[in-house]
Amino acid sequence: MLEIIGYIAGTLTTIAFVPQVLQIYKTKSAKDVSLAMFLLFTLGVFMWLAYGIMTRSFPVVAANGVTLLLSLVILYFKIKYRNANS
Amino acid sequence: MLEIIGYIAGTLTTIAFVPQVLQIYKTKSAKDVSLAMFLLFTLGVFMWLAYGIMTRSFPVVAANGVTLLLSLVILYFKIKYRNANS
Repeated sequence: MLEIIGYIAGTLTTIAFVPQVLQIYKTKSAKDVSLAMFLLFTLGVFMWLAYGIMTRSFPVVAANGVTLLLSLVILYFKIKYRNANS
Repeated sequence: MLEIIGYIAGTLTTIAFVPQVLQIYKTKSAKDVSLAMFLLFTLGVFMWLAYGIMTRSFPVVAANGVTLLLSLVILYFKIKYRNANS
């Protein structure tokens, strides 16, 4: 039961970034998305991934590996569409 | 060492939401912020909080408690400034 809640929580906080990626991709606009937020968040997720690798925790590695990828895509979009919207 | 990395990671992925809150507050615009992202994310963080309470893990409760609050503020802003920017 506890494990299931943890897995659902991890899945939700990971897949949450998919609609944000899709929205920026479609609108080509990321003006309202905070660059500082995604810089701090990406760095934090990278450290969670390192933590997961060091503690050999597969769920932590899987969730943060996917989140890191999505977060990097948003960061790339944010920088790419920065001039177009500032 | 491992614990320190976990604490830094948790602090970063929590405080990351502060600049997003400030940016929306200042610009009164949240058009590019995905509603679906923050709905899924808030629900996920709420479940992490429940998981932390059930496993009596103070760091999980603290980090997700603060993130839930910040995430709810962003969600409130997103809904508040929805019509103004759509």
